[in-house]
Amino acid sequence: MTPSPDTIDQLPTPALVVEQSTFDANLAAMDTVLPGTALRPHVKAFKSTALAARLHADGHTGFCAATPREIEGMVAAGLGDDLLLANESLDVARLGKLADQAQITVAVDSDTTLQAAIDGGILSVLIDVEVGLPRCGCGVDDAGRLADAARAAGLEVRGVMGYEGHLMMVDDRAERTDRVADAMTQLLRAHETVGGAIVSGGGTGTFDTNTWCTEIQAGSYTLMDTHYDGLDLPFAIAASVLGTVISISPKGWIVIDVGLKSLGMDHGDPTWPDGDVFFCSDEHTTLAPRDGVAGWNVGDRTRLLPAHIDPTVARHEAMWLVDGERVVDRWAVDLRHW
Amino acid sequence: MTPSPDTIDQLPTPALVVEQSTFDANLAAMDTVLPGTALRPHVKAFKSTALAARLHADGHTGFCAATPREIEGMVAAGLGDDLLLANESLDVARLGKLADQAQITVAVDSDTTLQAAIDGGILSVLIDVEVGLPRCGCGVDDAGRLADAARAAGLEVRGVMGYEGHLMMVDDRAERTDRVADAMTQLLRAHETVGGAIVSGGGTGTFDTNTWCTEIQAGSYTLMDTHYDGLDLPFAIAASVLGTVISISPKGWIVIDVGLKSLGMDHGDPTWPDGDVFFCSDEHTTLAPRDGVAGWNVGDRTRLLPAHIDPTVARHEAMWLVDGERVVDRWAVDLRHW
Repeated sequence: MTPSPDTIDQLPTPALVVEQSTFDANLAAMDTVLPGTALRPHVKAFKSTALAARLHADGHTGFCAATPREIEGMVAAGLGDDLLLANESLDVARLGKLADQAQITVAVDSDTTLQAAIDGGILSVLIDVEVGLPRCGCGVDDAGRLADAARAAGLEVRGVMGYEGHLMMVDDRAERTDRVADAMTQLLRAHETVGGAIVSGGGTGTFDTNTWCTEIQAGSYTLMDTHYDGLDLPFAIAASVLGTVISISPKGWIVIDVGLKSLGMDHGDPTWPDGDVFFCSDEHTTLAPRDGVAGWNVGDRTRLLPAHIDPTVARHEAMWLVDGERVVDRWAVDLRHW
Repeated sequence: MTPSPDTIDQLPTPALVVEQSTFDANLAAMDTVLPGTALRPHVKAFKSTALAARLHADGHTGFCAATPREIEGMVAAGLGDDLLLANESLDVARLGKLADQAQITVAVDSDTTLQAAIDGGILSVLIDVEVGLPRCGCGVDDAGRLADAARAAGLEVRGVMGYEGHLMMVDDRAERTDRVADAMTQLLRAHETVGGAIVSGGGTGTFDTNTWCTEIQAGSYTLMDTHYDGLDLPFAIAASVLGTVISISPKGWIVIDVGLKSLGMDHGDPTWPDGDVFFCSDEHTTLAPRDGVAGWNVGDRTRLLPAHIDPTVARHEAMWLVDGERVVDRWAVDLRHW
């Protein structure tokens, strides 16, 4: 059963809401710099095929994903023009089975992940190269060997990917640009030995400073969060978590029904435009209104701005697209779990 | 489709696993101190009717919950002997509709939440009293007035509740006991004006130091986490998140497929028994093995211990009960969302 509220006051809370005008402006700002397939939107940020369909309609027909389940969901939604599992997985036979329904490429960074791709019926790979973020990716000098092994097994090697995630939050733009250049120099060096048309990397924080990649993997720009909002990016916060005031204390605080279970907390507390966030509990946040509690009533509604959008979205079954007080659409968060 | 793996190596990862022997020992340790209805298990900690049914079979027939959806799920599972919504909500007409199927009591702390209960067909309430935690609860001196108003409207007032959540993590046992005594003195003072048989409060951290309540609301003791494990409690960590090694760097780290989207992060990083947690990303954790990477292979499995169990559980569709390498049962986490 999908409820169909007409206005924001009718939404069950806590509710993840997306302001349509801000969302549209974020998409337009990105399209100015990275139109069409120059952007490969990362579905891990929003986990919704309904939102992905909006990007596809804008011409961003290739997508990347962090989990096999995200890829499966995109295929089921008919969004399988060019899907990249931009992550290592040994569970890729699930995706090999979909080869007749979609173009699926997976990242590999070791003999074991390459073998899993071969055994799983995957037809094409990217070589994932470590460019400074201590996470996945082979060494620059190992990339060519892996590419050769993949081709020897009959796979198409479409190119390289390397994620400069450690540089997303470098505050100073000039320093960020310089350090991205260093990281991408490594990636291009690997690309020389790998070949293929694709050099994939980047993210919301480096979407315009990373000019070395043939495609940028960004997703958070669509919804944004307070963490990314601290950078000098042309995107604004479109997503918030709507709550209901359930308790008011004459001692100076109000309590809303938004808590740890509706927020991603790894980047810290959410932000409340009307005052201070005191603390979050499982299903509560205690707030200290800047102008005191006198103007507040139990039953009022207010919104928190998440510090990290990706894990926040993953806590919700749906996002509600709103235009001011009006509820415009419900986007199922249908790409969750694994 | 529910997969039915026989052994832990067949589980899809990331997977929330519960060690059966530890879980059973935690239940036994609690039963020694709080048998039967002296404990009112809090389902918010585990969000699973399958787990709740285990507690019910042990004689803990009354439960409390943090959301209307948790109550609805417990009723649907036939566990509605005595359910307490230990939280304020204006969305309680959902529960009033279930009055012929279960005994449902809701907490109220204001005229507005009381009116919502009356309007919603709720038959009985507890008066929620603030005892030092800056969250929900009326003032001690307002409790009697609310109780009178509830009775005047024809509702049964079953007593009071007050949650000393700010004291759960006081390290020193003597100090914790003293401060709980102060908080409970306030609750008992409210109880004098409210009446009713129930004085409800406490939690895993104060389950045996809170000797003033007629029933203790605890849930985390069943599964535990590293945060509670730092206290002097007779419970051990039963839950962990199982991951697969997807990448290994010769520079000294390994990467597993457990990340922010399978962990509650508000209490900080998870703990890894075999070395240091470097950092968590959406779908990865980078780990530095104490003895180096030489012994590790892509495809190996290992477990992280969550810092906060309640929001960790809420990220998963199921828990897997295991006995060593053997998978014993799958418990759906069926009480999620709102």
